[in-house]
Formats: sequence, structure tokens, C-alpha cells
Amino acid sequence: MSDLLKNKIKQANEEAVNRIISAVPVLVDVAPAEEVIPGLEDRMILHAGPPVKWKNMSGGQKGSVIGIMLYENWAKTKEEAIKLLEEGAIKLEPNHHHQAVGPMAGTISKSMWVFVVENQAGKNRAFCRQIESNQQFGDYSSEAIQNLINFREIWAPSLSAALKQMGGLQLKPLITRALQMGDELHNRQTAASSLFANTLTIPLLKSGLPQDKILNTLGYLINHEMFFLGLSMAAAKAAADSARGIEYSSVVTAMARNGTEFGIQVSGLEGEWFTAPAPSIDGLYLPGFGEKDAGFDTGDSAITETVGWGGFVLAGAPAILSFVGGTPEEAIEYSRSMRKITVKTSPDYLIPTLGFEGTAVGIDIRKVVKTNITPIIDTAMIHKEPGYPIIGAGLVHPPIECFILALKKFAEKYS
Amino acid sequence: MSDLLKNKIKQANEEAVNRIISAVPVLVDVAPAEEVIPGLEDRMILHAGPPVKWKNMSGGQKGSVIGIMLYENWAKTKEEAIKLLEEGAIKLEPNHHHQAVGPMAGTISKSMWVFVVENQAGKNRAFCRQIESNQQFGDYSSEAIQNLINFREIWAPSLSAALKQMGGLQLKPLITRALQMGDELHNRQTAASSLFANTLTIPLLKSGLPQDKILNTLGYLINHEMFFLGLSMAAAKAAADSARGIEYSSVVTAMARNGTEFGIQVSGLEGEWFTAPAPSIDGLYLPGFGEKDAGFDTGDSAITETVGWGGFVLAGAPAILSFVGGTPEEAIEYSRSMRKITVKTSPDYLIPTLGFEGTAVGIDIRKVVKTNITPIIDTAMIHKEPGYPIIGAGLVHPPIECFILALKKFAEKYS
Repeated sequence: MSDLLKNKIKQANEEAVNRIISAVPVLVDVAPAEEVIPGLEDRMILHAGPPVKWKNMSGGQKGSVIGIMLYENWAKTKEEAIKLLEEGAIKLEPNHHHQAVGPMAGTISKSMWVFVVENQAGKNRAFCRQIESNQQFGDYSSEAIQNLINFREIWAPSLSAALKQMGGLQLKPLITRALQMGDELHNRQTAASSLFANTLTIPLLKSGLPQDKILNTLGYLINHEMFFLGLSMAAAKAAADSARGIEYSSVVTAMARNGTEFGIQVSGLEGEWFTAPAPSIDGLYLPGFGEKDAGFDTGDSAITETVGWGGFVLAGAPAILSFVGGTPEEAIEYSRSMRKITVKTSPDYLIPTLGFEGTAVGIDIRKVVKTNITPIIDTAMIHKEPGYPIIGAGLVHPPIECFILALKKFAEKYS
Repeated sequence: MSDLLKNKIKQANEEAVNRIISAVPVLVDVAPAEEVIPGLEDRMILHAGPPVKWKNMSGGQKGSVIGIMLYENWAKTKEEAIKLLEEGAIKLEPNHHHQAVGPMAGTISKSMWVFVVENQAGKNRAFCRQIESNQQFGDYSSEAIQNLINFREIWAPSLSAALKQMGGLQLKPLITRALQMGDELHNRQTAASSLFANTLTIPLLKSGLPQDKILNTLGYLINHEMFFLGLSMAAAKAAADSARGIEYSSVVTAMARNGTEFGIQVSGLEGEWFTAPAPSIDGLYLPGFGEKDAGFDTGDSAITETVGWGGFVLAGAPAILSFVGGTPEEAIEYSRSMRKITVKTSPDYLIPTLGFEGTAVGIDIRKVVKTNITPIIDTAMIHKEPGYPIIGAGLVHPPIECFILALKKFAEKYS
């Protein structure tokens, strides 16, 4: 590789990472997906991961799509839903093609309200749906659907009213504080969710909403330890998207899984996916579930690792090890090793356990292939069959093949 | 020492520590001190640390006592307050003689509302005042006094109404969670305070109080990161008091400082103080203050270390190091070394950073003297002159002399 090319890549990667670390994510609204997500059509379901056809979808993601069919009243029964999906009556597209991300199966449809996060530095917007433990994992029971209805009818409109009262909410200060309080902003959001609930309390009380809606919404926020994941994912997506499409940049702008394939996207190769079969997860199971039940790696939530949170900051979130497995020493080693595959560290997001070192940001596909170190992701686990809630959580690495494929294409394009 | 005596001491210490670790602290009320604190009289001011006369009080504690004189309207001016104090018109007694503890100067008087924590295991009660950054440090300005008035007139009665709505609040689950979220429950209470505000929100809304009082109280709770220290101190005091007066026990039941002397109390030597001059603190100063301003070690808050929190769990609270100084490696070493001077570890209060090991509980004066390792305390810093707010925070060790004196007395009594 010529020095000229090396230098162009270096400059492009600096630019990409600077955009990620200087992103200023602001939660500006919670709004119906059909009103805010570009290109979202009627009878379209957005899903996590790279593109996938209905017939190739994993069991959990299929269950989640069936849930959306029932939620939107596009089908009255599971059987009717499957018939329509098999006939191709419903468009399925990746969230990532619509500036959006979704947890686990990641399903988003028109009447679902989504968080709207604006990156005030890049002027781009990103969207994410709420977090729950059932429908997003493939559970399409009436209780699972009722939670989506409650979000649409009560919680989301109330949050929107509170946010209007506040004029939006800067997320960076909350995220900075949560990283000092044992959160890693992927599977542990305990502190961020608690701080968020406190921050919204007085605006909710001043929103003019009826008292029963306020109490109901406060109850939802206060008891939902994972609430903030919807915001950290949207904030991460807004930051990562601002680094898209920079010629000569070998920095990763998305890592996403649909339970069938793991896919990555790269700044200098905008619009392309580099995929390999989704890996299995090494983790701990909730009571009643075991290895025989586990689906493969699923969800857009690895967008948090893409910007340097989640597995990348495990060192600062040792309490999560009781949920995903591993020792504090391993967690520190994971966080330290991520420096070897990234461009630089964040000046704002700091890890107290590592003596206030910054988080490692900007995964460089060249460094991944050269070192054979793949990103570390901590994630929840989905059932391999439709119809189940969350079954556990653990640690996973993307297949190195995604990075090798991307690097080959990168070399073809730029040499 | 005979084997018989050794065995008696061992059994007594087991009993003492078991009482501490099995304490079940419940916040049962917030109430006026004169109604709940045993032996608190009119024209009496309770203070932090071992007994001390007005003339021997440190500057900061004097300032805080002057503040109480103005707050209670026992004097109209600083000069009048000092005159009355010099004349002996006001009784000064340690909080610890009244089942109470207080932060920094620790001043409590009749009209001040206090947290009432009941240890449901030992059936004993303990009391602590609210935490603020001014009057408890010696600032007697009208703003400092106004905060005490607001607590009495608005915040404390509102909290009491919310607690009645809830039927009291179990503190152990909150403390357990906060220890997983980077708090050490002495100088860092960010998570516990946030969780507490979450927990009180709905009961406050259902209390029937006027909306303006509710909003005002929620604003106080939500913006007060150190709020929970008043509860962790009361919880610690309730646990430590349950271990008092066990014959043959060499376990410490109190460590307290008045800015002039550091004093400890020992279970098997109930009622006695073992004191030495209060040490200086090695720490970081807030802008505008420096070493030349620093008073000596002050406050009853070392009751948190007495039961195994605070400095003893620094390993789990690395974010605090930006406030008190030191490295994460040192913090881990501090927490590990505390095992060498304690009887056992807690099965409930766990440190994720140390692989979920339990906190070290039950300081044994024999082990302190034998190893020459004194407890590690992290603490706020008070000005040496009256009239100032908080000036910084740091780390401190009690003088070994306290432990040597206690051990001498222990040997005299029990051999």
C-alpha cells in the first residue's frame, strides 16, 4: 500500500472517529414511526440486522414479526399472519436502511412510537423503539402485544408531552454519568434509566396530562431498568450515522444481527453489508431455559459497541457479569483489548475503573483483520423458536469473515 | 492469653459481627428531633465525635453550632450566640450518646427533623439529620440557615407523608443495589440518591400534599446527589448499635471525629471513648481552597466505615477517586487490606469489582494493633475557621493510638 493511500485512509478515519466522538445526541421527541421514519410505509415491518427474507428469518425474529402483524391488526391470528408473510404481502426491510435501530428482533411498524434522537453536531436524526422483554424477543402473546399498545396509547404520548415541556433532553451528560455508575449502556442501563426517570418527573408533572396518565407513565419509567437502552441505541445510531460515507475510511459504521446473519457496514463502503452466519452466544440462561433453546446472535443493539459502549466498557460495569458471565479481570482485559482495533479514545466518555481512560472508539476493519481480535459484544439471548420472551444474556464476537470480506472490498475499491 | 479467653473473645466477636451484618434497616419516618431522639433537651445541641467542650471545639464545628443557635432563634447574632455558648447556657453532647449520628460538625437540635431508621432485627432505632454543603460544615450565613428551615417546613414533612403512604422503606435492597452502581455510601451516594428519589416519587404524588410542596420536595430529592448519606449513616448507626455492649467483644462500634479528637468505641467496653488528636486529611480541594484552610478530620460519617462501607468499599466506587484522589489499583488494595483487620465479610453487601466478594465487616482492635493497619476512611473536608461551606474531600486513617488505648483497657478488663 502506498504512503499516499495510507495517509488518505488515516485522515478519513480521523474524520470518521471525530464525527462519532463529537456527536451531540439530543432526545427531541417520541413520535409515531410513520410520522418520522423516512421511507417507512404502510404494511412494512423494519427489522434488526442486515436484509433478510421471511423464509430465512430466525425463529425469534419470525415470532416478533408475527407480533407486529397482530399489533397492527394486519392479521387476526398467527396463521393468518404467516400466510400474509409467506405471500409477500408485507415488506421487510432493515432498520439500518431507515436511520433506525431496534433491540433484538428489532421490529418497528407504522403505529409504533419511536424515540427521535438528533445529533446536533451532524444534524442527522436516528430512531429507536422502546425496550421490553417479550415482543422484541418473539413473544406474540396478548400480554406482549398489550405492552406495545400501552406504549402507543399512554407512555409514549406522555413522554412526548414531557419532552416538549423540557424542550428536548441532552443525552451526553446522562450517558457520561451512567458510565461512572456501572452502566455499559447495552445490557446494563440501571443508572441511566434511574437518572432519566428522575429527570422526566417534574416535566411530566408540569405537562398538563391527566394525573392517572402521569402516574402510569412514572410507574413505567421507575420500574423499567432497561428503559434507557432505547435511548443509548438511538444516540449511538445518530453518532455512527454521522460517520457514514467518508471515502477512504475503514471505520465500521454498523454491526447488526438478524439471528441468521451478522452484518457490518463500513464508512468508505457506504450502502454495502458484509455478512456471515450469526454466531452463538456464550452466556447465562434465565430459569427454565438452556443451551438447547438458544437462537443465534440477534439485534441492532451492537450499535452501542460500534460507538465504544457495551462490551467495550465492560471494565466499568462489573455488576453485569452476574448476568452475562465472566470475571472483573476478564472485563478489564476486554476493554483494554478494544484499543488494539480502534482509532482513538473518547475525551468525554470515561471509565473510572481504568483510571478515567476514555472509551475505545472507531473499529478499524484493517486492525481487526491484522490482530485477529474481533469486537466484544454483550447481548441478550433470544429463543430459536417463535413465541418466547428473553431467555438469557451473554458475550459474543462477530465472525471475523465479515471483516475479511469488507477489507477485500475496501482493497478492491481503493487500490 | 489463655485459650479460654481467646475463645470467649472469638465467640463475642462473632456475635457482634453477626448482629451488624444481619441488621435490617428500615426508614420508618422523618420526624422532629425533639419528638424522637432520647434525651434531647431544649437548649441542647448534639454534635459529631467524642465529647468536646465549646472552648475546645474546632473552628468548623463552632461555626456549625453558631448556625444552630441562629436557626433555633436562641440567638439573634453570631456574637450573642458565642456569648451564650461561652456562658455554658447551651448543653453540648455527642450524637452517639443519643442513638444519633450527624455529618461533619454533626449538629442536631430540637426543631430539626431527623431520619428515623429502625433495625428490625435488633429492634433498636437510630437517627441522622439531612445532608447539605453549608451549615454542617460551619457556614452560618442566612442562606445556610434557610436550607435548614426549608427542610423543617417543606421537605421533611413531605418525606414523612410519603413514608407514611409507603408504610416505611426497607433500606437494605437500596444499599445493595447502590453498591453495584459505584456508590460507597459515604462520599458517593449518586446511585442511592437517584434510586431513592425514584422510589419516593409515586408515594409523594399519592400523599395528598399540595402540588407545590410535592414539586418542591421532588426538586430537592432529584437534585441532591448526597441525599442518601443521611440514610446510610442512620442505617449504619442502627447496625453498629446493635453490636454494643457484648462482653468480651473487641469489635469497634463507633468511629467519630469532632475536628479536635478522633474517638472510637468498642463493644466490650461500652460507654467509653478512646481518643487521640484528629488527623489531617490527604485530599483534593474545591476551587478557592487549599491546605492552609483545612481543619482536622470531622464527622460521625465514619459510622459507614464502621459497618464496612465508605473507604472499605472504595474498590467498587472508582468514580469517587476524582473527588478524593488515588488510583483504581489503590482503591482495590484499600478494600482488600480491610479484610486483615475485620472479623468476616458480609453475605449481602457485595463488591462487583472484587468478583462479588462481600464487604469487610467488624473492625477488631486486636487486629488493627497487631497489623498496624488502620481503617481507611474517605471523607469530606471542613474549614479550620467558622463560617465556610465544604472545602474538599480526601482519605484519612484514624490515629493508631485510639486502638492501642482501647486494647490496653480491653486487656485490663478481661485478663
